[in-house]
This record gives sequence, C-alpha cells and structure tokens, in this order.
Amino acid sequence: STRKDKGLSIDFKESQVADFEDLEEDKFLNAVVKVYCTHIRPDYGLPWQKQRQHSSTGSAFMIGDNKLLTNAHCVEHDTQIKVKRRGDDKKYVAKVLARGTECDLAMLSVENEEFWRGTEPLQLGRLPCLQDSVTVVGYPLGGDTISVTKGVVSRIEVTPYAHGTSDLLGVQIDAAINAGNSGGPAFNEQGECIGVAFQVFRSDEAENIGYVIPTTVVSHFLNDYRKNGKYTGFPCLGVLLQKLENPALRESLKVPSSEGVLVRRVEPTAPASSVLRKGDVITSFDGVSVGCEGTVPFRSTERIAFRYLTSQK
Amino acid sequence: STRKDKGLSIDFKESQVADFEDLEEDKFLNAVVKVYCTHIRPDYGLPWQKQRQHSSTGSAFMIGDNKLLTNAHCVEHDTQIKVKRRGDDKKYVAKVLARGTECDLAMLSVENEEFWRGTEPLQLGRLPCLQDSVTVVGYPLGGDTISVTKGVVSRIEVTPYAHGTSDLLGVQIDAAINAGNSGGPAFNEQGECIGVAFQVFRSDEAENIGYVIPTTVVSHFLNDYRKNGKYTGFPCLGVLLQKLENPALRESLKVPSSEGVLVRRVEPTAPASSVLRKGDVITSFDGVSVGCEGTVPFRSTERIAFRYLTSQK
Amino acid sequence: STRKDKGLSIDFKESQVADFEDLEEDKFLNAVVKVYCTHIRPDYGLPWQKQRQHSSTGSAFMIGDNKLLTNAHCVEHDTQIKVKRRGDDKKYVAKVLARGTECDLAMLSVENEEFWRGTEPLQLGRLPCLQDSVTVVGYPLGGDTISVTKGVVSRIEVTPYAHGTSDLLGVQIDAAINAGNSGGPAFNEQGECIGVAFQVFRSDEAENIGYVIPTTVVSHFLNDYRKNGKYTGFPCLGVLLQKLENPALRESLKVPSSEGVLVRRVEPTAPASSVLRKGDVITSFDGVSVGCEGTVPFRSTERIAFRYLTSQK
Repeated sequence: STRKDKGLSIDFKESQVADFEDLEEDKFLNAVVKVYCTHIRPDYGLPWQKQRQHSSTGSAFMIGDNKLLTNAHCVEHDTQIKVKRRGDDKKYVAKVLARGTECDLAMLSVENEEFWRGTEPLQLGRLPCLQDSVTVVGYPLGGDTISVTKGVVSRIEVTPYAHGTSDLLGVQIDAAINAGNSGGPAFNEQGECIGVAFQVFRSDEAENIGYVIPTTVVSHFLNDYRKNGKYTGFPCLGVLLQKLENPALRESLKVPSSEGVLVRRVEPTAPASSVLRKGDVITSFDGVSVGCEGTVPFRSTERIAFRYLTSQK
Repeated sequence: STRKDKGLSIDFKESQVADFEDLEEDKFLNAVVKVYCTHIRPDYGLPWQKQRQHSSTGSAFMIGDNKLLTNAHCVEHDTQIKVKRRGDDKKYVAKVLARGTECDLAMLSVENEEFWRGTEPLQLGRLPCLQDSVTVVGYPLGGDTISVTKGVVSRIEVTPYAHGTSDLLGVQIDAAINAGNSGGPAFNEQGECIGVAFQVFRSDEAENIGYVIPTTVVSHFLNDYRKNGKYTGFPCLGVLLQKLENPALRESLKVPSSEGVLVRRVEPTAPASSVLRKGDVITSFDGVSVGCEGTVPFRSTERIAFRYLTSQK
Repeated sequence: STRKDKGLSIDFKESQVADFEDLEEDKFLNAVVKVYCTHIRPDYGLPWQKQRQHSSTGSAFMIGDNKLLTNAHCVEHDTQIKVKRRGDDKKYVAKVLARGTECDLAMLSVENEEFWRGTEPLQLGRLPCLQDSVTVVGYPLGGDTISVTKGVVSRIEVTPYAHGTSDLLGVQIDAAINAGNSGGPAFNEQGECIGVAFQVFRSDEAENIGYVIPTTVVSHFLNDYRKNGKYTGFPCLGVLLQKLENPALRESLKVPSSEGVLVRRVEPTAPASSVLRKGDVITSFDGVSVGCEGTVPFRSTERIAFRYLTSQK
C-alpha cells in the first residue's frame, strides 16, 4: 500500500548529523571553559587545622589577554584549579589573579600557551532591557559537556549578592541556572556577553529565578584590576539610611517635598562621617534627587535603589 | 601585543546604559501596578474575634475608566489596599468595587486623580492558540520592581479555580509564575492582554505549569459589572452528570449514538429542576451535540468540557 | 468623558475565539495521542503472585504504517493499553509490537481502521544543534487535553537511560517535561520530530533538565524492527575501559600520544574476547582515534563518549 512506503522504511542516518557549516555560529560557545576546583576550607572552630578537602566544578570564560573570568565562590579556598576547553580532552592548571568577594568575581590566568591557541575572547555588551532574550552557557549538572539554556531578562535592580553579603546591581532572568553554571556567561541575541551567571533563588515556591552579574559590575572589577593591579573593592557610603515614606515623619523633619532619606547612623571610620551626621536628610546625590523610598531615577521610567549610584563611583 | 589591545583595556561604561528610545516599546508595562494588601481573616472557630492581620503583595493592571483589575484572592478579607505604579515612590489607597469569587477576579478603584495621570489602560485581546508566546508581567518574589517572564500557551481547557472551588475556562502556560504574580496580566506578542495570571500547579514533580484567566472569563466579569452594577456570578446548570463511555450502559439507556451524558442528580433549587429529571440523557445543548465524555466541539479539532457552554451564558 | 468610551464598555466576545484557519498549522499536533495503560507488575519476592494493578497515562505518536511509537516504560508489564486521539471522545485498544528496553522505546499497533482515518504520521528530522528551539507535545499532568511546552536544546551527549540502565545518545532540553509527557514527540521549528521525550533530572536543586531520545536512536530501533521483524538490541563492546588521563600511567604503558583508553576487563561471552585482552590500549576504532578521556570527535568541535560509536553499529 502507499502508506507502507512512507513510515518505517526510511533510512535517513546519513542526513541526521548536521552539516559542519551550520555550527559555525556557535563560535562564542568555545570561549566558555569548565573549571575543576579543589577546595580546602579553614575550620574556624579549630583554627590550627583545616576541613577535609572537597572538589567542585563550575564555568569560566575568556575575556582576552590570556585571562579567564569566573565567580569568586567557584574558586574560594582553592588548592588546585584546572580548566578544560570545549571539545578538548586535556585539563590545564589555572591561577587566581584577583578575587572580588563583594561582586563574586575572580580573574584566572592559564600560563600554558597551548590552552589559548586559536581562541577568541568574548565581547562584553551593555546592560540589557526587560524582555530581552538571554542565553546562559556553562557546565551545570545533567551531563558533562557544555549546556545552553534560554530565557528573558525578568528584572534589573540592586540585588543581594550571597557570596559577599553585599548589594550590587543584578539582572534577574528566567532561563534555567543550575549548579555548575556559576561563572558562565550570559549572552544577548547579538552574541555579546551581558554578564556572569552566579546565583539562583531556590525554594519550593520559586520557579526560574536566576541572577546574572551585569557588565556594569564586571567592568568595574576589570577597570579596578587594570588601574590598581589588584582588586580594591566597591565604594560604600558607610551610612545607615531610613525611608521617609511617612508624611508625619517628613513634616517633623521639615522635608517639604516627597524626597529624601534620613541618616540613622554614620560609621565612624567612613569618610562620610566628616560630612554627614545622624538626623541629616539626603535629598540629592551628585545632583540626582533621592526619592522618599531611597530610590533614584534609572533609564527612562525605571527607578533603582540609591545604593546603585554610590557603588558605581 | 595585539591581544592586549582588546580585552581588559575597554572602557564602555558610557554605552552600557541603553538609549531611552529603545524602551518606548515597554509602554504596556507601565499599566501594571503593585498591590499592597493588609488582610484580617475571620476566625470561624471563634466567630466573635478575628485572626491576626497579615499583609501580602500582588499585582494589578489598568483596564480604563480609572479602574484596576486584580485577583479576588489578592484582596480577600482586606482592611487596607494600596497600589504603586512602576517607577513611582508613592502608594495610593484603592477600594474594591466588585469581587468575583468563582472567577477569582476583583475590580479596584483609586480615587486620587494623581495616580491616573498619563496612564493608558491595557487592551484586552482574544483567546490565544496553543504554542502562542505569552509574557507574564507582575511583582513576584525575587526582587521589588516589575518582573517579566516568557513562555508559550500549553493548554486551553476548563480548569479548577482554587479560590472559588469552581471550574471555568483557563489557559495553561509554561512561563514562570511566582508568588506575587497573582493579578498581573499576561500578554501576547502584539502586546494585548490575554488574561490574568492567577495560580500554579506546584508539586515536587511539576515544572512550569501556570494558569491564566482568559479574556472570555474576564469580559464576562466586566460585562456583568457594567450591566448590573455589581458582580452577579456565572451560570451553573445545577446538575450532576455522568459520562456514558460504557457501551453497555449506553445500550441499557437506549442511547443509539456515542453522544450524550447521563443526569445523575438535579439540585432542587436549580431552574433546571423544572425541565430535567434524574435518568435523563443530555445529547445536545443549544444545538451543540454533547459527546459521551461530556465534551463539546471547540475551535477546529479541539474539544472542551460541556460546562464551558453553560458558564458563558 | 472620553475615557469612559474605552475600557469597560467593550464587548468583544465574538472576536475572542480565533479563526479556524489560523489553527491549520497545528496539524502535527493531531498525530500525538494519549495512552491509557493498566500495569500488573510481577512480585519478585513472591513470584507465584503479582502486585496490585495500577494505571497510568502517557503519550505516543503516529509514525506511519498504522503504528505508534511510545516509551517502553509507558507500557511496561501492561495488561491493557488504550489510546485516544486529540479531539476525539473514543478510546481504541492498542497492542505492543516491539519493546526496546535499553532505548526505552515501544512500538504499538491499533487494529481498528477507524482510529487511523484522516491521520498523517510525523516526519522524523535529523539530530538538532545546541540552541535549536524545541517544542514538546504530550498529555502531562496539569489538565486532560494536549499540552505544548517550548525550550531549546541544551546538550547532546551519551546519557544514562534510566529504564534500561543503559547509556545511549540523548538530547537534553530546557522545555518543561512533566509526568505524562513520556512517549510524546519533540519537534524542531520546521515541525519535524527530533525525538521522544522520556525522562527528567528531578531534584530540589535542578531546574528544567529534560531528556529526549534522538532520531539516531529511534531510527536504529525502527530499522532493527524492519530488518529482523522484532527488536534485537543495541551493540555493546562488552569491555570495561579505563581513562588514560594520567601521564605516568600512559608512559608505563608506552602510549606515546595523548590518545587511547586501557582495557580493564573483557566479558568472556563478548565477541571482543577473541581479539582484545586485559591490558590492551585502544587508540582508534574504525579509523577514528579515541582520546585519553574515552571520547571521539563528533560534529565540528564537539566530542562524544567512545560508546556512541559502538552503539550505532
């Protein structure tokens, strides 16, 4: 019958493996490497000895100048770091050049020139917009080889960074990020790197909430290293602020408009202690007016936490 | 070397923040507001007192005529409701105009004209098809500002509505819906609102199963309010039906074709009680023939539960 | 006022249900059917009796010649199998023609010609590339009707198949796969079937890690059935191999290059036992050189486990 001719009798094995040319577009995947790290954590209870060593895997990517970028928590308390390129069987020893605990970034170098043969670093892109599609690349659980997941930019705001217990700008995405993705790049549709995947919000009630370190934070880290030869950190005002949402409180402080935040405490070691005092109201910073909820304008109709302004200095 | 020139030495800070014009397309995001609600639930065990108050946040959106639409469960047992626009620091008091428990919808009004300045309501679109892409917007956990997640329409069928223990048409999607998304809109690719995100199927074994109240249900609620000045509810046949899949049962009831469902019980207070009796077989409704599994034809090759027909009257 | 004219006063019910023509593109959805199976597992502890029967639902799809393809685990220990087409109220009895335990595939036949009226089998496509978009279709939990989820190809590598405790080529995707999706097809953007959804990596820490049986494995199963009239299995070398990553070990074995894997044990019943002996080093297979990590080249820059080569014979 005619039906018998289609169906089972096909033999399409030869055509199943895609042409090599089609895969050329994946060139930026080759800049993402797998990181094998052995950690020995100190034992703070028994400081004369260390805890048992354990090993972990993560991701990193090439940023040019024979350097790799990864997360600081991927190489914390490291004793040995090895990296492996995609489609290569050999692991190469890597060293940590700089660690940024607050921004959860670390820069690695690989001395063996063989590792860098024929490689191309990633291009850093600018801050994405909401809804922009995003591709996360790395070596997470679920297999051994490189993995790709896709989603969109969900949110851009000042985010808690778990590794450094700090708050910096973060990009929330709804692409799947799993253990091992840490340190891997996120790309926009043009194939530019828009940041480093570094943590997820994990709970029984949460779904697809992953975070990426944006290029504004990455470039602050890179510029810091370039200027100072090491990581020196992010600025911090050293001031405890209180929102002024309450109209009665605003009136008692004689704040006429709906702007401004109250200074609750100034760290004595902070440079701001020579200028600010407890009870002051900050209504603007560098000419940017600060809202009563502690936010400043940010790109068109968006607003962002006041902290963002100071951390970018 | 040449390699040193690319890589670390870039300083692209200025270009990282996107041009404002690019963000114009996000205009429909500005119609989505954050809802802060304080609830005091009654204590049915000790009816002379109430339970401790608790607060929650959700989402809502502008539907024109200075009105907002949200989920009924977002403002259940409310004592105070406040809403905040995107990129605004000020919260405005809102009131509930109508609550639809079965359809989990509530209409809010905000009296302060300042809140509505420069706003544009969302346009309601038609029922989507399977595979259509869908964007969910709201204020879920994972941060404070507006959040966007994307997916596709997985399924369209009569769905249990948890809040009202009812069954109405629902759209299942695979975009992430998290706590706080409730009451927020879902958009199609044309930026039209195709429904209200309202619940998820959450279990250890389930992934990306979220539900949206479609515009057919939303418009029934809105038309009901427009005609009657209040919410009067969805029609219900008041009849317990049994499937007639079993050929022996069909034969004993003398149902010739494979159509029809058996009436098992008629609520004495239902209007149908004057027409239907226990033991009757319903083979068609309004000229539409009812299948033996209790389904009726729906859009091309699709079928849908018989209940859908009656609820749309 | 002008605002009152837009907003609540719309009545768009008529236009909400999409035109039928728009739905024509979903034709390939109609080849996916729901599988109802009753299982009675043997009781290996009390072999003279069986365990209580239980039922499950899964998915299957038409492959031409009045045959269906599904997962072997969907119809394991079956006593009765019924299948239902999309938009149909009637279930048809199906029989198992072949079971492939290692590849988790089963072929079903439905004798009733009525079931096949107007149907079109799916076209099998070739192996996808990373980042290719993928659509999973089936009848998972969350509702009763057909469901569609979308994602991208995350990874292609030799994967453990849980049902047969075997290792074959697998495609990892980030589209949601839920219970009941098993046996359903995955499509590429051209609407070609690129495989069969069959298992997920589920843990508290994992998100969106689903696996698809690729068409290379499916066609091996189909060709096997066509040639031999039954399933005969996948070839296996019957040899335990050890990686040769350690340079000292390679030197002691006098392996000059970084290629080759060490034979640790040869199964006495394997045909390879007449050729290979413990202590041999396999440096190439069919002219393809084997890396020291036990991988062989695969499509452009990719590498894949050596096992893949032997299983494709």
